[in-house]
Amino acid sequence: MKHLTRTRVRYGETDKMGVAYYGRYMDWFEMGRSDFCRAMGKSFALWESEGVFLPVVEAHCRYKSSLLYEEEIDIETSVSNVTKVSVTFSNKIFHADTHKLAAEGYTKHAFIDSTGKLLRDGNKLEEWLREKSIEN
Amino acid sequence: MKHLTRTRVRYGETDKMGVAYYGRYMDWFEMGRSDFCRAMGKSFALWESEGVFLPVVEAHCRYKSSLLYEEEIDIETSVSNVTKVSVTFSNKIFHADTHKLAAEGYTKHAFIDSTGKLLRDGNKLEEWLREKSIEN
Amino acid sequence: MKHLTRTRVRYGETDKMGVAYYGRYMDWFEMGRSDFCRAMGKSFALWESEGVFLPVVEAHCRYKSSLLYEEEIDIETSVSNVTKVSVTFSNKIFHADTHKLAAEGYTKHAFIDSTGKLLRDGNKLEEWLREKSIEN
Amino acid sequence: MKHLTRTRVRYGETDKMGVAYYGRYMDWFEMGRSDFCRAMGKSFALWESEGVFLPVVEAHCRYKSSLLYEEEIDIETSVSNVTKVSVTFSNKIFHADTHKLAAEGYTKHAFIDSTGKLLRDGNKLEEWLREKSIEN
Repeated sequence: MKHLTRTRVRYGETDKMGVAYYGRYMDWFEMGRSDFCRAMGKSFALWESEGVFLPVVEAHCRYKSSLLYEEEIDIETSVSNVTKVSVTFSNKIFHADTHKLAAEGYTKHAFIDSTGKLLRDGNKLEEWLREKSIEN
Repeated sequence: MKHLTRTRVRYGETDKMGVAYYGRYMDWFEMGRSDFCRAMGKSFALWESEGVFLPVVEAHCRYKSSLLYEEEIDIETSVSNVTKVSVTFSNKIFHADTHKLAAEGYTKHAFIDSTGKLLRDGNKLEEWLREKSIEN
Repeated sequence: MKHLTRTRVRYGETDKMGVAYYGRYMDWFEMGRSDFCRAMGKSFALWESEGVFLPVVEAHCRYKSSLLYEEEIDIETSVSNVTKVSVTFSNKIFHADTHKLAAEGYTKHAFIDSTGKLLRDGNKLEEWLREKSIEN
Repeated sequence: MKHLTRTRVRYGETDKMGVAYYGRYMDWFEMGRSDFCRAMGKSFALWESEGVFLPVVEAHCRYKSSLLYEEEIDIETSVSNVTKVSVTFSNKIFHADTHKLAAEGYTKHAFIDSTGKLLRDGNKLEEWLREKSIEN
C-alpha cells in the first residue's frame, strides 16, 4: 500500500540557497502519513481523541535533488514496519512533473497514551495499522 | 517598560529572496512577549497552568529593512494597551549592530480559559499586566 | 476577482494551545497570493526570473475563529489596491466545511528589482496586476 | 571539539501534543552548526560569499525525551567526519537544567559551488574543517 499526497513548495519553505530548506521535508513527511491514515479511514486526530498518540522517536531523510519554489511534489507514504510498540512510515518525495526521486526517508513512532506512557501489547492502533498496510 | 530580546536570524528563516521571510517575524514577536512576561516574573506557561490563555486576535507588522542570515537582531517588547478582556504587545525589531529599525508591529490577545471562554472583569492576568507595564 | 486555494492544517502548524499557530496564517496568505498569480498566468517565480520582486512591506491579520489540525481551509485572495509602486493582496480564510470566516487580513508589497531598488512608473507588473484584477 | 549553543523552545515550535514538534529539531541542528562555524572564525555566510555552499544530503535524529515550551536547551555540535566532498556534523540536544539528553543526530553536507556542481579535491572548506575539528 502506497499513498500519494500532492502539494506545492511554498515561498516560505525555501531558503537563501534558493531551494526548499531541508527541515521542511519533515513537515511533508507528516502531511504524507496524516493523509495515509485519513485515507485508511482513521486520522491521527481520531486516534488522539481515543487517547492514542504517536510521537516521533526517530527520523531520517536522504536528499537527492533540490526542490524549487512553487514546484509540485508527490509525497509517497507507506508503512514499512509495525511492532507491538511502534510503527515506521516510509516516505519518498518525487518531482511531480518528472517523477524523479527528490528525497526519501522514514519516521518511527511510539504508541503512547495521553500521559506519555507506552501502550504495549495489542493496542488497537497496532492491529489497525497491520491490517491496513497488508490490505492495501 | 521596554524589554529587549536578542536573537540571530536562522538559515531556515530566510527565503529565496535571500533575506528573512516575512512570516517569521511573528515568531520573533512571540519570543519578545514570552521573554517580557518571563522577565516580569510569570511566564505564559505559568499563566496557562492556572487556566489563563492568550490567543492572538490581531497581528500587524510593517517591514522597514531586510534582515540577513546570521544577523543579530534586538526584539523590543512593551505593553501598549490593557483592557478587561485583552492586552496589546508592541514590538520593534532592530538590527543589533546599527540599532536601525527593521520592523515594527503589535499583537492583540484575548484572555480566555481552557475551554475557550472569554475571561472578563478583573481577572488576575489583567491586573498583573497593568501593574507590570506601569511599574517598569 | 477572488481566487480560492484549499489546503489542510498540518500537525506542525498547530501549537500547544491545540489549534493553528497565529504566525502560520502568513504562510497561508502567501499560498493564496502565489496561487492567485499562477492562476492569472504568471507566477512570482516567473516575475522574479524577469527581475521583479515583491517583498512584503506590511502585513495584517484578524483572527476570528481557531483552526484545528487536519481541518480543510479555503484561502480567498484578491487584489485590493495597486499603485505605481505597490500592490495589496487581501485574504480571507474560511473553514471549508461551514464556510465560516476564520481570519482575514492583507499584505502590501513593494515592487523592487534584484538589487533592492524600487521599481517606479509603469513597470509591467503593475499593469498586469491592474488588468488581471479588473478583468477577473 | 564540541560547541554549545543555548536557546529556548518557542511557543510556535510546539504542537498540539504540547511539546516541541519533531521537525523543528532540524532548525536547532542548523543553529548549532552555524554557531560552530562562526565560533571557528568563518560563518556559512562568509563561505557562501566565496562561492562554497553546503546543502544537506542526509539528516537523522533520535528523539529521547520531549522538550517543553520555554524550556532552555543546549545544542552540542561537533564535526564527526570530513571527506574530500562532504562534512558530517553531529548534534546532541540537552535539557539545559538537568543536562539530560533529549535528542541526538547528524547532518551530512556536500560541498558545492553556486551552480550546484560538487567541489572536489582539496577545496578550502575541507581543509579548514579538518583543521578546526582537530585543533579544538
